[in-house]
Amino acid sequence: MERIINKTRVIGVDISVERTTIAIVDIRGHIVASGDFKTLDYLNIDDFISKLSKELIILIDENGGFGSIRSVGISAPSANFRTGCIENAPNMPWKGIIPMAAMLRDRLGLAVAITNDSKAIAMGEYTFGSAHGMRDFAIITIGHGLGCGYYSHGKLCNGHSGLSGEVGHSCVVPDGRKCECGLEGCLETYVAEKGIIKTAKEMMAESSEPSIMRNIVDSITPKIIVECCEKGDKMAIDVYNKTGHILGLALANFASIVDPEAIIITGGIAHAGHWLFDPLCESFDQHIFHNMKGNVKILESTLNGRERDVLGASVLAWNVKEYSLFK
Amino acid sequence: MERIINKTRVIGVDISVERTTIAIVDIRGHIVASGDFKTLDYLNIDDFISKLSKELIILIDENGGFGSIRSVGISAPSANFRTGCIENAPNMPWKGIIPMAAMLRDRLGLAVAITNDSKAIAMGEYTFGSAHGMRDFAIITIGHGLGCGYYSHGKLCNGHSGLSGEVGHSCVVPDGRKCECGLEGCLETYVAEKGIIKTAKEMMAESSEPSIMRNIVDSITPKIIVECCEKGDKMAIDVYNKTGHILGLALANFASIVDPEAIIITGGIAHAGHWLFDPLCESFDQHIFHNMKGNVKILESTLNGRERDVLGASVLAWNVKEYSLFK
Repeated sequence: MERIINKTRVIGVDISVERTTIAIVDIRGHIVASGDFKTLDYLNIDDFISKLSKELIILIDENGGFGSIRSVGISAPSANFRTGCIENAPNMPWKGIIPMAAMLRDRLGLAVAITNDSKAIAMGEYTFGSAHGMRDFAIITIGHGLGCGYYSHGKLCNGHSGLSGEVGHSCVVPDGRKCECGLEGCLETYVAEKGIIKTAKEMMAESSEPSIMRNIVDSITPKIIVECCEKGDKMAIDVYNKTGHILGLALANFASIVDPEAIIITGGIAHAGHWLFDPLCESFDQHIFHNMKGNVKILESTLNGRERDVLGASVLAWNVKEYSLFK
Repeated sequence: MERIINKTRVIGVDISVERTTIAIVDIRGHIVASGDFKTLDYLNIDDFISKLSKELIILIDENGGFGSIRSVGISAPSANFRTGCIENAPNMPWKGIIPMAAMLRDRLGLAVAITNDSKAIAMGEYTFGSAHGMRDFAIITIGHGLGCGYYSHGKLCNGHSGLSGEVGHSCVVPDGRKCECGLEGCLETYVAEKGIIKTAKEMMAESSEPSIMRNIVDSITPKIIVECCEKGDKMAIDVYNKTGHILGLALANFASIVDPEAIIITGGIAHAGHWLFDPLCESFDQHIFHNMKGNVKILESTLNGRERDVLGASVLAWNVKEYSLFK
């Protein structure tokens, strides 16, 4: 019998609207090599798959070859590991059901698993990040939308249909803001990017209080609102106070169900730092069930964004036997 | 070496405010023998433990003896398997932290595990009831309060502190009804017993519409309101319409997080039947995230109340190695 050496590397692929990032990652979570390209340059899915495979083949050939690669993990919005597909992703260029895992497997001849971006991030945080050593925790990603991945007993909770963690579409304000998903009052419409901008614009419209945000109404972003907070702008601070208050209430509701050791907040909106976290933690404490008070940590992720996304996908790749449809 | 025969029976104990039920249950979930007594006759915890041990010893001696009994499972409100204690149960006669599992183990010399009533019911439904064969599901018990137990990947989700499933204390109406737990707008204050009665009284106070409920205001119960529904009383029907609407919204929020195959409704309030389930299912469909629409079954439990409670405790007993602190 030939001497077989276990393959010690995997491929992590993170597909987001702005950018597709690829990386070769080793067992200890070191990124051996990586690259990226703009997702929206490939509006046709076949063109995208051709570009992705080409970039992966070059990366692999230049860094040890296919003989060292065990499998591929993909993280993407609205991806479902139970079907291997990206399903009706509202912000992605490819509509309907995209069998991404099967398409990439056919091009590369490697086992491929796919899951949604928040679940992949949870896997990354569990293995290499803030959740290392925890058995029961959740991650909340806040950017364009609000996503969630959570663990119970050291195992990712996928749900019956692979769709668990849609906290962003739980109703926090009955008959509240209209969400792109068709529902009303979804958490995401208050605390994700567009929601925060909407809150700022509503506050400016409803009051005559002076604010430096008024000079930049049309170009306002959550990041600019943070800059206004730093300058002491009261209304900008109130925007994050309201955002944190609603998020704290929603996370208290979430925690009352899941009872996590920690909720790790990540994504662009987490960069608001204490402007968001102070009112968030105050509201969380105010709304959490008394028996759990003081039991749940609210943490910021210790992984940075780019690293975080491909690391999560790489952990999925190591679990390909469980998560791929193609054993 | 002596020939050893595996013990084929366990003890299930269900402690509720009204009644403590004990049973010897075999591997297939047949109740071999059972008994019960009034919990509130024993306001001192030592008296209660003495009564419980005495009744169990008699039951065991009369039905095959201690040689056939493997272990004991207890189901009780506010019980936490991680500590083995009943912790600050608001409706029970014994205040503070009661180390129930250790106390009963010391009297009987058998391994004892304890968990809260809703988690025990989830174990019973999984093993012998409506959830048999499911991997991801939830049970919701509605009576005095609203409890929840749920499974992910065929495993009960206990949470980090053993406190998961407090759906009854998630906020459904911001700044809403004051709950006994100290929070405001808790689901339980609208859809559990007292909440339904409060809704009925509010409706009578706020409108002059005729209703047969007005003749029995002081003695009104959820069961009597159902009888009024059966007689075609419009306001009584509206009480359950409102109850079902709020419950449907809350369960849609819950399902968007947990993504269960089914939510099984049980407890006294479930006896309202279609008066509750019709508006509940309508509201659930209206509020569920679009990708999950049609994926989640809302079911009634197929186990009857008394059987259900001790069966759940008996399943816990079989899992004593995992759930007892005393290995």
